[in-house]
Order: sequence, then structure tokens, then C-alpha cells
Amino acid sequence: MIASERLGQLGESATLARIFPRLPAAAAQLIGPGDDAAVLVAADGRYVVTTDMMIHGPDFRLAWSSAHDLGWKAAATNLSDVAAMGATPTALVVAIAAPADSPISLLEGIADGLRDACVALAPGCGVVGGDLSVSSVLTIAVTAFGDLGGRAPVLRSGAQVGDTVAVSGALGQAALGLQLLFESAIDDAGEPDAACAAALRAEHPAAIAAQLAPTPPIADGVAAALAGATAMIDLSDGLVLDARRIALASSVAIALDSAAIGSRAAFTGGEDHSLLATFPAGTMLPARFRAIGAVVAGDGVLVDGTPYEERGGWDPYREWDGAVG
Amino acid sequence: MIASERLGQLGESATLARIFPRLPAAAAQLIGPGDDAAVLVAADGRYVVTTDMMIHGPDFRLAWSSAHDLGWKAAATNLSDVAAMGATPTALVVAIAAPADSPISLLEGIADGLRDACVALAPGCGVVGGDLSVSSVLTIAVTAFGDLGGRAPVLRSGAQVGDTVAVSGALGQAALGLQLLFESAIDDAGEPDAACAAALRAEHPAAIAAQLAPTPPIADGVAAALAGATAMIDLSDGLVLDARRIALASSVAIALDSAAIGSRAAFTGGEDHSLLATFPAGTMLPARFRAIGAVVAGDGVLVDGTPYEERGGWDPYREWDGAVG
Repeated sequence: MIASERLGQLGESATLARIFPRLPAAAAQLIGPGDDAAVLVAADGRYVVTTDMMIHGPDFRLAWSSAHDLGWKAAATNLSDVAAMGATPTALVVAIAAPADSPISLLEGIADGLRDACVALAPGCGVVGGDLSVSSVLTIAVTAFGDLGGRAPVLRSGAQVGDTVAVSGALGQAALGLQLLFESAIDDAGEPDAACAAALRAEHPAAIAAQLAPTPPIADGVAAALAGATAMIDLSDGLVLDARRIALASSVAIALDSAAIGSRAAFTGGEDHSLLATFPAGTMLPARFRAIGAVVAGDGVLVDGTPYEERGGWDPYREWDGAVG
Repeated sequence: MIASERLGQLGESATLARIFPRLPAAAAQLIGPGDDAAVLVAADGRYVVTTDMMIHGPDFRLAWSSAHDLGWKAAATNLSDVAAMGATPTALVVAIAAPADSPISLLEGIADGLRDACVALAPGCGVVGGDLSVSSVLTIAVTAFGDLGGRAPVLRSGAQVGDTVAVSGALGQAALGLQLLFESAIDDAGEPDAACAAALRAEHPAAIAAQLAPTPPIADGVAAALAGATAMIDLSDGLVLDARRIALASSVAIALDSAAIGSRAAFTGGEDHSLLATFPAGTMLPARFRAIGAVVAGDGVLVDGTPYEERGGWDPYREWDGAVG
């Protein structure tokens, strides 16, 4: 049966032959997969590079995420880092290590998720190379590339006192999804449970999708750059922690308005991969950005005028308990 | 005690702060580590990209490789794929997943090995970004970039009938080193043993270094391109298997001369990361290349005129037995 073929039976070459046809080509690709390396166009003589790894256990549970979710999220989180520089994503390379007894359908599903995320979030972006290996821990490492279109990159360090602070994308949804999964998608022994997760996804589609297969506002990175954004960051570790990074890099304080943000749960929840940016006062904000505060003199993050000291975010080295599922 | 600090105590930010100062900057770097992504120069409007992952177990044993070896080999093997395109390596991004109870000295040693390999093998190449994560299996994923200097990339598909086949670098040394390790660097129970490996390294320095910390001829990639190489490949899976890849991509046969190669052990041993290239007949070969055969009509690989059918190479999905050490 095709569906039950294992990587260990197929071998590396046959596995690659099954996967590559599922992946999209990149518009920027001069030489794609199949040689020692790929060759890509850098139209303005520069390219943006970011890398991020997803590990079974600290980063996902196979009981909760489908293979398609994993490919989608691996692409989406890396595309978001490219977008946060004000760049258009152009290509990915993907290294995957999987147990030898994994069914080929696992890698096919990951490939389909990578493809569908590229098509949906960053049309023209494709997969130009990769590596397959074997490991007892499913591991997906993506490196993503982007094109600045002749513009300066939007760094964390450019925020100016008086700028408007704005966000595009959800706040706190991904963390809410994770909380729901830990509360309700476990069995009586406390282990992640696939059937419970499926039921939960039907009940809370937005929050669960935000956690398992996020749709960050990739195109808004370029929109922010074109509108004159002075600083920008991908919200991977929560609004407050990432706002503090802009404050530190720019030697300013970020003053947030809780009424504009809505819920306090939005302050610290990570993994939204929304875009936080600063714009000169009076800028007409790009379509999906909404103002949530201002850049002021000082340091750190203020909420309604009061310093906000809670750390937020998540540190895999400190906080992962070793559970997988 | 500094030496015994664990990643789980330090956390991700403090660990990164300890590692990044050890890494070399890249000459091509416009924006380096610390923002959402790096920005690199692509001087001729193109860039070369390759990615490769090393996993504890199938790819290395901590009982045999020092942390410095791991960083060195992770850099060297990726630099070699860039060189095989005829490009100069410019930068690396590095994603590492390590157990939370790893000492910080593990990551410091990997960083030092990455740095020393860049300095020794590809001066000007640096580390421009990365990601740290936690996993029960030590995993190192490197993506490497290169600059073609205005030249066409040297592909696997350009070999022409009549071309000279030449190699730069050792053949079979890395496989010999691995064989010695499996024979003599194990304890009475058959487990990898650090003390035995150290003794073996003193006895057979060239072969053990070729396996654990290879020094592929990176600069010879550009030298071959400048000399007019028509095809080139990094010898990662052994001479015959990789020669067969050139033969297939170029629709020719590769005829090897066993007397020029020396030992038959050199035919199938993998991981040398030497460069196999084809040059128009009569080309003055670049300094360290030596002729070992010719391109002829047909398909596959011939040795002394006879088709050579042995597969060679190594497939982690089929052949890794799950041991670590």
C-alpha cells in the first residue's frame, strides 16, 4: 500500500523524487533543486536571509498538528521574518530529519503544506533546495530569502519619538489556541490527543488555526516599508516582549494603549507572527495596520502610561518539559 | 562553574549572547545577526544557496567528534557544495537544536569550529544569522551562500565527450577514517569510546581528521570555474556514485583510470568533499587538480573500460542502525 510506505524502505533518492514535484518553483530561481546548490536572482544586488527550526516536542505535537500544518507553519513563520524586514519572500530551502519508520505521507504532507503556504501567503516564492536526513526527532529547518525591491530594510532600530505604533494581524490568538489545546486536547493521562484536537478545531477554528497553521500578514511587510515604516518586527514572542526589542534597539520607549489592543491576553501571547511597526506621526497607515500606541522618550514598554514589566514570551531551553505526543 | 553551565539554566538569549561574539562577520554582510533577518550583498545580482543538516547518530557520534569538530565539519561540508558550483562562499546561517542539559561549552565549541573552518577554508565568509532550539537529539542545520563573481555556475550537466575528468582533494580518506573508528574506537560492548578515538587520531591523523574535521579544497571550486570546467560536483557520496551523477546529468559516461586513482577503496568511500570536475581536453588543470579519466559516449561509470555497477555511497534512511554514542 502506497500510504504505508516507510522512508527506510524507499531510501533518500526515491523519497526526494516523490517530494520535489509537489513543491513550487521560485520565480527568482535560476538553478533549482538537483545540483550541489541552487542559484537565485538578487534583483537589486542584495538579499534577505532568515532561518528557523521546528522540533517535535517543544515546537509542535504530532497528535495536534497534521503534516500539512507543519509544512505550512514552517513556511509561514520564516516568511514572516522576511516580511518584517520590508521584503518580498522569494524562496525557501528546507532541511527535514524524520524517523526512518515515518510513512512517506508525512513528508508529502509537509511538502504540500510548504507549497500551499507559499501560494497563499507569498505568491512567487518557492522551494529551491533541501536536505533529507534521519533522526528520532522530527525536525524541520527552513531558511527563507527575500527581495527588498531597492528599498532600505526596515530594522528594529529606526523607531523615533513621536512615531505611531501599529500592528497588522491578530494578537493573542495563537496563544489562546495553544492554551485551548493544553486544556482540552489531552486524554485522561494528560497526553496530547488527536481526536480531542480535531473536535477543538471545529469548535474554535480561528484560535486553533492561528496556533497550528498561522496566516501572518506577509504582504503587509512591503506595504509598511512603502508607507515609510521606521521600525518593524515579527511578533513571534508576544506583543510586549517584541515591542521591548524595538524599544531597546531604537533607544526609545513604546507606549501601548490597552483600549486599542482590546484584551490583556494579547500582551504576552506568542507566535502570532503579526507585524508590529512604527510610522512617522500622521502617516496614512497601510490597509490592515491599526494604531495601538506611540513611541515616546525613555525605555521599555508602557501600557496606559505605566511600565509593563512582565516578561512574556517563551524560552524552549527553560520551559519545555520534554513531552512530545 | 562556567564550564558546567547548562543551556536550560542560561536560557536562549544569554546563550546567543555567549555565542555570537565567537562567530566571524561576513564581508558580504549589510545587516548581520540581531534583527528579524540578515541582509547580504549579491555583487553580481545572483547568489548560490545550499543547505545540509547533521544529526547525532547517523552523521556523528559525540564520543568521537569534539564540539569544535562538529562546527568545523558542518561549515566545511556546506562550503564544499558552494565551491562545487564554482562560487566563493560568502556566508552561513546556522540553526542548532541541543538538549537542554547540554553545557554551554558544547555550543561555544561548535561556534569556534564554525569560525575556524570559515577562516581556514573560505576567508571572508562569516555567520550572519541563526536559530537556537531544544531537542533530545543534537542537530546542526547550516545554509551556505556563495558569489559567482559574474561567471556562469558550473553544473553537473555540462560534461562533454572528450573532456578530461579531474579531482582535487583526497579520495577515500574520510571513509578510511570512519572504518578505523568503527573498528578501533569502540569499547568492549561495541559502543563508541572517546579515549579509543583520541588514541586512534594520534595514530592515523590524516584519515581521522578527514572523517571528523575535513579540509575540502574550497578555493579550487573557483579555480576550476576560471579554468573552464564544464561540470563539477562535491564528492560527498563517493567517487563512483557522484561521477555517475555527472554522467546522468550530462548524458555521457565517465571513464575512470584506476592507476591514476590509486586504490580501489577510493571508488566508493564517501564524505571526502573533494571536487570532481570535467575540463575540455588539453586544459591546463588548476594547481591541485589531477586527471583521473575522461568523458566518453555512453552512460554510467567505467573503470579501466569496464562498467562499474557497485552502488557506493550511504543512505541514512536505509543504513543507519539507530546507534548514537
